[in-house]
Amino acid sequence: MASPTPTLLLLTIFFFISASADPDMLQDLCVADLSSGIKVNGFPCKDAASVTSLDFFSQGLANPGLNTLGVSLSRIDYAPGGLNPPHTHPRATEVVFVLEGTLDVGFLTTANRLISQSLKKGDVFAFPKGLVHFQKNNGKVPASVIAAFNSQLPGTQSLGATLFGSTPPVPDNILAQAFQTSPGTVKHIKTKFQPKK
Amino acid sequence: MASPTPTLLLLTIFFFISASADPDMLQDLCVADLSSGIKVNGFPCKDAASVTSLDFFSQGLANPGLNTLGVSLSRIDYAPGGLNPPHTHPRATEVVFVLEGTLDVGFLTTANRLISQSLKKGDVFAFPKGLVHFQKNNGKVPASVIAAFNSQLPGTQSLGATLFGSTPPVPDNILAQAFQTSPGTVKHIKTKFQPKK
Amino acid sequence: MASPTPTLLLLTIFFFISASADPDMLQDLCVADLSSGIKVNGFPCKDAASVTSLDFFSQGLANPGLNTLGVSLSRIDYAPGGLNPPHTHPRATEVVFVLEGTLDVGFLTTANRLISQSLKKGDVFAFPKGLVHFQKNNGKVPASVIAAFNSQLPGTQSLGATLFGSTPPVPDNILAQAFQTSPGTVKHIKTKFQPKK
Amino acid sequence: MASPTPTLLLLTIFFFISASADPDMLQDLCVADLSSGIKVNGFPCKDAASVTSLDFFSQGLANPGLNTLGVSLSRIDYAPGGLNPPHTHPRATEVVFVLEGTLDVGFLTTANRLISQSLKKGDVFAFPKGLVHFQKNNGKVPASVIAAFNSQLPGTQSLGATLFGSTPPVPDNILAQAFQTSPGTVKHIKTKFQPKK
Amino acid sequence: MASPTPTLLLLTIFFFISASADPDMLQDLCVADLSSGIKVNGFPCKDAASVTSLDFFSQGLANPGLNTLGVSLSRIDYAPGGLNPPHTHPRATEVVFVLEGTLDVGFLTTANRLISQSLKKGDVFAFPKGLVHFQKNNGKVPASVIAAFNSQLPGTQSLGATLFGSTPPVPDNILAQAFQTSPGTVKHIKTKFQPKK
Amino acid sequence: MASPTPTLLLLTIFFFISASADPDMLQDLCVADLSSGIKVNGFPCKDAASVTSLDFFSQGLANPGLNTLGVSLSRIDYAPGGLNPPHTHPRATEVVFVLEGTLDVGFLTTANRLISQSLKKGDVFAFPKGLVHFQKNNGKVPASVIAAFNSQLPGTQSLGATLFGSTPPVPDNILAQAFQTSPGTVKHIKTKFQPKK
Repeated sequence: MASPTPTLLLLTIFFFISASADPDMLQDLCVADLSSGIKVNGFPCKDAASVTSLDFFSQGLANPGLNTLGVSLSRIDYAPGGLNPPHTHPRATEVVFVLEGTLDVGFLTTANRLISQSLKKGDVFAFPKGLVHFQKNNGKVPASVIAAFNSQLPGTQSLGATLFGSTPPVPDNILAQAFQTSPGTVKHIKTKFQPKK
Repeated sequence: MASPTPTLLLLTIFFFISASADPDMLQDLCVADLSSGIKVNGFPCKDAASVTSLDFFSQGLANPGLNTLGVSLSRIDYAPGGLNPPHTHPRATEVVFVLEGTLDVGFLTTANRLISQSLKKGDVFAFPKGLVHFQKNNGKVPASVIAAFNSQLPGTQSLGATLFGSTPPVPDNILAQAFQTSPGTVKHIKTKFQPKK
Repeated sequence: MASPTPTLLLLTIFFFISASADPDMLQDLCVADLSSGIKVNGFPCKDAASVTSLDFFSQGLANPGLNTLGVSLSRIDYAPGGLNPPHTHPRATEVVFVLEGTLDVGFLTTANRLISQSLKKGDVFAFPKGLVHFQKNNGKVPASVIAAFNSQLPGTQSLGATLFGSTPPVPDNILAQAFQTSPGTVKHIKTKFQPKK
Repeated sequence: MASPTPTLLLLTIFFFISASADPDMLQDLCVADLSSGIKVNGFPCKDAASVTSLDFFSQGLANPGLNTLGVSLSRIDYAPGGLNPPHTHPRATEVVFVLEGTLDVGFLTTANRLISQSLKKGDVFAFPKGLVHFQKNNGKVPASVIAAFNSQLPGTQSLGATLFGSTPPVPDNILAQAFQTSPGTVKHIKTKFQPKK
Repeated sequence: MASPTPTLLLLTIFFFISASADPDMLQDLCVADLSSGIKVNGFPCKDAASVTSLDFFSQGLANPGLNTLGVSLSRIDYAPGGLNPPHTHPRATEVVFVLEGTLDVGFLTTANRLISQSLKKGDVFAFPKGLVHFQKNNGKVPASVIAAFNSQLPGTQSLGATLFGSTPPVPDNILAQAFQTSPGTVKHIKTKFQPKK
Repeated sequence: MASPTPTLLLLTIFFFISASADPDMLQDLCVADLSSGIKVNGFPCKDAASVTSLDFFSQGLANPGLNTLGVSLSRIDYAPGGLNPPHTHPRATEVVFVLEGTLDVGFLTTANRLISQSLKKGDVFAFPKGLVHFQKNNGKVPASVIAAFNSQLPGTQSLGATLFGSTPPVPDNILAQAFQTSPGTVKHIKTKFQPKK
């Protein structure tokens, strides 16, 4: 990347609603009780009497009240040149709708086939569950999408950051062997992903 | 409704992508082969060699290539005064993101509690799986949303149309008893929902 | 409805067993601990040492001990002329077995097709998950069925009651527009469904 | 068994409806096309245009039209002294409703605990998925139940018949060692379960 | 069984890892908190901050930290002549890999068909979910397998022990009728399976 | 990697059994008919009459007969220094059992935390569904594991190969930006992963 602007400044993701529960629901509502000391698969439920419409509503912040609904939504903004770098969602398929701008997107199958497409405002594209994918704004104006997931908590594993910026770090020799490059190159890439002091 | 403009002209729904398969996927991709004479739960798959990126892409038409991905997306447009009347999706939770305008929305629990909210551009709201819900544009300008579903084929059952406009019709006496009104009122409502000749 | 007897007196539903857990079971038994202060998807489990055969047994009352079994059963009684008015079960398919009497039953598809049938003692009929359906006793003697559901808590949303009798109420103008009738008709129907003071 | 009447004459099971498809449905209806040469998990679907209400109806015979609904129902009749011998359903929980007579029923947990109960007309009891269970009519009059299952094809594996009457047979020495009895006893029991010539 | 050596001495089963949660995971990790007083389907989760790599590691003892992962593994050792007697796993399919020795294995379908095979080191065989199956070491040297299950808690119901050794016992007359043998034979078999005083 | 020996020679994976069908089974058996021209989620089934025990058996080759069983098994061999480089399984959790040798293994959470462990013969370790993980033989002798998956077709996406060796290739500028390195470095790494001519 020639530009000194870091990737992460070029990309903004808002998770509006991160509802919860991909196994089937067993009641109408199970609004997450985030203050509970009990932890279960997903979240425990608030008492029904304290549920309000605001539990199902969001204005740009995560909405903890939607436990067990099995779907979530996020908005992603891309500056010109911005990249949502190759990543996976371990627990969901993603479908994006382009709100504005243009995007070049793609995913990779387990047969290492790249399936890519250029998108413009109003277009829709799908990224199958668990497969590596990316979106790049090659245009001169900002772009944004709404992304829908069929999991309350799809998870995001960004490959550069997880491989080269984890705590504790993945050993250099494993990364060098994996990418068939030198330990020096690995060390250099790691400096870009280290948590800032 | 004072206006003679029928509800359906006030509401436009585009299903961009109607992917397919809420049971878990068993392979990376299973693009629906809509020309197959074989019918199964969801759809049979196209041969992998004939899959292209266009199978995952949509510009406003249904995208038959997304079988087994367990998610779908639609855009809904509301004229001023337009109503997406009370309906259910038998197989999915819905989450909407307001693209423009304002909307008054609500869903009803099985305890007959109404949970409603006023939404403006950028707001998000969720409608739990299978419950009756509606959206109304009480504003003076058009409104639109992107709606995401955790099923490739959520299904929509609009209650007025299904009860009063089905083929063959639901008997008048059943509807009169159900809504505790007169057969005359039922007959009158039915005239509004009859298929046009 | 000619008779002044309200629908609800003509129809009696006993939920014998409302077992629990449509996601797969993770142990042999998870008898619901209804006294627990913790709320989760379904119910938390009683200690295994306090489980008895009575937890799996019922004589006409709900059986709280059957959490996670993914099935429930109810008995429904219909007086002559009685109607189980159009309703949905958001989380289950229903199959009925006629114990006595005769019934006219039907369900509506999302294509607004009515699929109906007359049933007599010993007959069986199925209502697919989430679709609007009804049963009417057009005979001169009482009728009854056993209804089985593939969910521990199928939920029942009776359309007349939920649309016209909710708390707070669905606005009159939404209902008038939805059913293409006058606000006066809506107000009149609402009086029939208001909770008794 | 003192009586010379074989067990199987004392017990009659009618599967009224054997619907199909415990993974979630992907459309309103997928009536099984039993004449199709194609075999899939469950069954392929008939063309929607040829679906009728009779596909969802049954008068004592299996109903092939209910593919993907995830529930089935059967009626079981017990002569006085009749036994539905220890068996499992590999794919479903069972709930029974006693139509007439009395029954002694029980199931065994994986901790080898017997949970048993005496039932009379109108009682309900549940047998968790996959566990060994039985029902015995110790009364002097016939008994019958309606049994509901949360699978379209629960399967029934009767332990005596499968262990001692399979084709080809389970070797005598394995059965003798398993039941800690003599090969002679095994051979004797096998004569009772051999298919009739 | 001629030998006085009990079956159970001839067979050793180690469950290395008994992870937990066959409904889909809703987060990366949900390590079981076995000390929690709360009981749910599966187990509640430990606080993420106290999770370590040892929670995912096992050296021959059950590993309580793997809740929600939907898979488990065990090692089974068979002395010469040892039998893993006919049993079911109510919640999982099993696949075995032979580490050493030879084994004769089989499973029974619900049509009472025996599907059996002789296995040697490195061979693999599958036993479908819920069906009765067994493994016998007919060789002169020890045998062992690794068994994998698609459930965190598959459960094991050994048919001899559960039918003839349960607490409280299954009545003699039910077993005699089920196996079409005499109450005397039943009593004799039961003596072999009674819990040791 | 100092050695000129390519990674892939240091690692051998045999998929013994690649059974099929993570949505629940709807019958005892559904042996995959790999010769069928019909493609569905998973595979269509062979006729039951042509099923044999060999369909459930494997000696080192994939076993096409195990469709719908929801589990698979593979053996992986590691030469000294061999690496199974960072990869994901989009559709399964993996549990490994060490047959021989020693291995250093790890997985990364979506919070970029590395959870790693050294394993020796007989040890067991789990890698949660969809998360990036690796195994390295840092010992001087060969190592091997049995790996179990809770999917018939877990899929494997090796990150180096899919990012740098796909067809068509991922654009250089996307990879450079993603790994915050130069296009020259990207081009160099790509030469190592190009398909051999």
